Amino acid sequence: MASESNGFSAAAADRKIITCKAAVVWAPGEPFVIQKVQVEPPQKLEVRIKILFTSICHTDLSAWKGENELQRVYPRILGHEAAGVVESVGEGVEDLRSGDHVVPIFNGECGDCAHCRNPNTNLCARYRVDPFKSVMVADGGTRFSAVDGASGVRRPVYHFLNTSTFVEFTVLDAACVAKIPPAAPLERMCLLSCGISTGVGAVWNTAQVTSGSTVAVFGLGAVGLAVAEGARYRKASQIIGVDINPDKFVLGNQMGITDFVNPKDHDKSVHEVIRELTGGGVDYSFECAGNLDALREAFLSTHDGWGLTVMLGIHPTPRMLPFHPMELFDGRRLVASVFGDFKGKSQLPSFAEKCMHGNGEDKINLDGFISHELPFEDINKAFELLEQGKALRCMLHL
Amino acid sequence: MASESNGFSAAAADRKIITCKAAVVWAPGEPFVIQKVQVEPPQKLEVRIKILFTSICHTDLSAWKGENELQRVYPRILGHEAAGVVESVGEGVEDLRSGDHVVPIFNGECGDCAHCRNPNTNLCARYRVDPFKSVMVADGGTRFSAVDGASGVRRPVYHFLNTSTFVEFTVLDAACVAKIPPAAPLERMCLLSCGISTGVGAVWNTAQVTSGSTVAVFGLGAVGLAVAEGARYRKASQIIGVDINPDKFVLGNQMGITDFVNPKDHDKSVHEVIRELTGGGVDYSFECAGNLDALREAFLSTHDGWGLTVMLGIHPTPRMLPFHPMELFDGRRLVASVFGDFKGKSQLPSFAEKCMHGNGEDKINLDGFISHELPFEDINKAFELLEQGKALRCMLHL
Ligand SMILES: NC(=O)c1ccc[n+]([C@@H]2O[C@H](COP(=O)([O-])OP(=O)(O)OC[C@H]3O[C@@H](n4cnc5c(N)ncnc54)[C@H](O)[C@@H]3O)[C@@H](O)[C@H]2O)c1
Ligand SMILES: NC(=O)c1ccc[n+]([C@@H]2O[C@H](COP(=O)([O-])OP(=O)(O)OC[C@H]3O[C@@H](n4cnc5c(N)ncnc54)[C@H](O)[C@@H]3O)[C@@H](O)[C@H]2O)c1
Ligand SMILES: [Zn+2]
Ligand SMILES: [Zn+2]
Ligand SMILES: [Zn+2]
Ligand SMILES: [Zn+2]
Repeated sequence: MASESNGFSAAAADRKIITCKAAVVWAPGEPFVIQKVQVEPPQKLEVRIKILFTSICHTDLSAWKGENELQRVYPRILGHEAAGVVESVGEGVEDLRSGDHVVPIFNGECGDCAHCRNPNTNLCARYRVDPFKSVMVADGGTRFSAVDGASGVRRPVYHFLNTSTFVEFTVLDAACVAKIPPAAPLERMCLLSCGISTGVGAVWNTAQVTSGSTVAVFGLGAVGLAVAEGARYRKASQIIGVDINPDKFVLGNQMGITDFVNPKDHDKSVHEVIRELTGGGVDYSFECAGNLDALREAFLSTHDGWGLTVMLGIHPTPRMLPFHPMELFDGRRLVASVFGDFKGKSQLPSFAEKCMHGNGEDKINLDGFISHELPFEDINKAFELLEQGKALRCMLHL
Repeated sequence: MASESNGFSAAAADRKIITCKAAVVWAPGEPFVIQKVQVEPPQKLEVRIKILFTSICHTDLSAWKGENELQRVYPRILGHEAAGVVESVGEGVEDLRSGDHVVPIFNGECGDCAHCRNPNTNLCARYRVDPFKSVMVADGGTRFSAVDGASGVRRPVYHFLNTSTFVEFTVLDAACVAKIPPAAPLERMCLLSCGISTGVGAVWNTAQVTSGSTVAVFGLGAVGLAVAEGARYRKASQIIGVDINPDKFVLGNQMGITDFVNPKDHDKSVHEVIRELTGGGVDYSFECAGNLDALREAFLSTHDGWGLTVMLGIHPTPRMLPFHPMELFDGRRLVASVFGDFKGKSQLPSFAEKCMHGNGEDKINLDGFISHELPFEDINKAFELLEQGKALRCMLHL
């Protein structure tokens, strides 16, 4: 790419601070404050993006509540599932330019480290997901600042999960931005920024589910239902959905779930129910509830000898893994999957293409995942909907 | 095979009780009593074997001590690593006949169940390893009896690990007997009955270590050194041996170990030492110590992103797995391996062939594993040698 077209010289003119609206969280679990923030221009290898849509993932809910003590860093701009347009790029950014349609990637890809060059991992040495990181790599500083309503003092506002999308303009490392086809509808593409890619990718990349396999999904939020949708696409013969909230079963039907298990409806444990339903256990189970008891049930629900459990849920608990070492000798395996093992920057564009095309059974049903749409200002309402188990993904319009 | 040649009709004449010598354990940790036992003829699908050599694996040591409460079943004949000759076979046994050279397989293979037909597991539904089983499948009874020295009463003597080899004649399910080439030296083949197959198989089958990989082995008993030998055969570029007993390092040199780490020699933890030695961690680690702290170090010694830890050690402890669920998100994986993922009956014959042939670097060095040879009557001495860390495998001659 010629140096003029890399966007840097063009961007130089735009290297100004932008003042815009954000939803800032000042203390764990306190309502988001919609307020003005200043957003600095992108530094070397950084990109500034205009966010058009952002939705809310359970990981935002956990961080907002401060479930993990080490994550309690305030004031902060949360949010990591979004879609938008590049506003300007910093020095050295070659692959993105102003006007590009993009989604933020909380699990970045530099393309260059030993990990990025290894086909068996999507954990970049430099930009992988890090729930405890709250500043930019380049200088250890933040690109946001805001005035504290109480003291009237301007303070730095911290970043979240390589992304921070609850704001009109955000700054990210270019390694954490994936380009998507300009023709793709941004509102749908927002879903690929985290939940849907995570669920579908866990089935396609991590577990590599094949036609005729049996699958159980624990937790039928957007991530769990994306697992079901990915398994339906791969022609799994039986897809068992488990949730303590039966409202989730309605949508689950559309995502190919063949059997539902509500733990509250049974005297025996869920794994016993599933072993009976399947004659010994499923080939694959996926934990998408963020609950260790569910993880244990998911593990025991697989067939001994060859069962594989993929853990997707985030577990902000001091509890250790709930397995005895000898239980591994029954041939059940457990692995975790970040972002569905997609290498975000290099593999998301083709996944986006696949989601736009295809017909009937050969199509990933993105629309079904958007349960609510609200203006950005109603973000507190959107968090409530997710927390109460009423929303899958609530799409906020900026 | 014609019905005469299946050994049944020939065997009918031999369907007599044999009185012979055994080493019986009457209570946890008490010296073995060398005494006469009666051995019944094999029932349907069973085989009676004349044991010629038996050696002692750490699993025997744990069972002898009664480390797991549920295993405390007495009187009992322990032992599972052996080689011998078929004496007679029961009804329906088609693949074995009197005179065949065989090794007992503690992890049996019926060849017929869903597990046996699945190439991804060696855990037969019917005859897999079961440390708590102490009777025969056919009738829930034992084939051994002995007179209790204290009371003068004849009592049934329990079986162990599908095998029971500390006796001149033993009865096993035919599914737990692998035929070996008649030309193979039985004393060497004894090693394939457990320890060496377990270690080499974990490298070849479970982890599928390839040329140029880096490996760490925790615990340099026969199992751990067999891992090293299997990794050397597969041309691993670095093989790090970890043991708290530096005597093991001498033999380790012959098995291709390139670096030794004695945890006692370092202020930092072993995984930090190994990460420094390898620039980030090994590709594969193997836990062969039967110790959960070693398992944790083995796990953390692998490279993030793609490291695989294979657990071989048996853990008779109430402690749960020493990992936090979030630690799995670093891309390290943990699996357990029984009998090195060899399907014993069908795959051991060709492994035995491989061990007999080959030259130089292309040969599995079996001889190195026999550290002591003793008459059967000295079994208490042999247990002492293993417990004190002085023996790799002490070969008992019957
Ligand atoms: N690994 C990754 O890369 C990644 C990416 C995105 C989200 N996540 C995590 O995945 C999980 C799911 O995210 P989401 O946005 O779909 O959440 P969500 O809140 O929309 O859905 C969670 C579902 O789990 C159900 N649930 C809770 N406890 C349960 C139990 N004990 N048994 C069965 N069901 C139970 C809830 O009723 C709900 O339907 C969260 O832990 C989130 O942090 C991980
Ligand atoms: N998975 C299977 O199929 C299978 C088969 C055979 C044996 N086993 C198990 O494998 C393990 C090894 O068997 P073995 O016969 O080689 O035993 P062994 O007693 O000969 O060797 C164990 C070695 O581990 C070392 N060790 C002990 N604690 C350690 C620690 N904290 N760190 C480093 N090293 C330590 C000891 O010094 C010893 O050299 C045992 O637990 C045994 O029960 C499993
Ligand atoms: Zn998310
Ligand atoms: Zn990278
Ligand atoms: Zn053994
Ligand atoms: Zn079988």
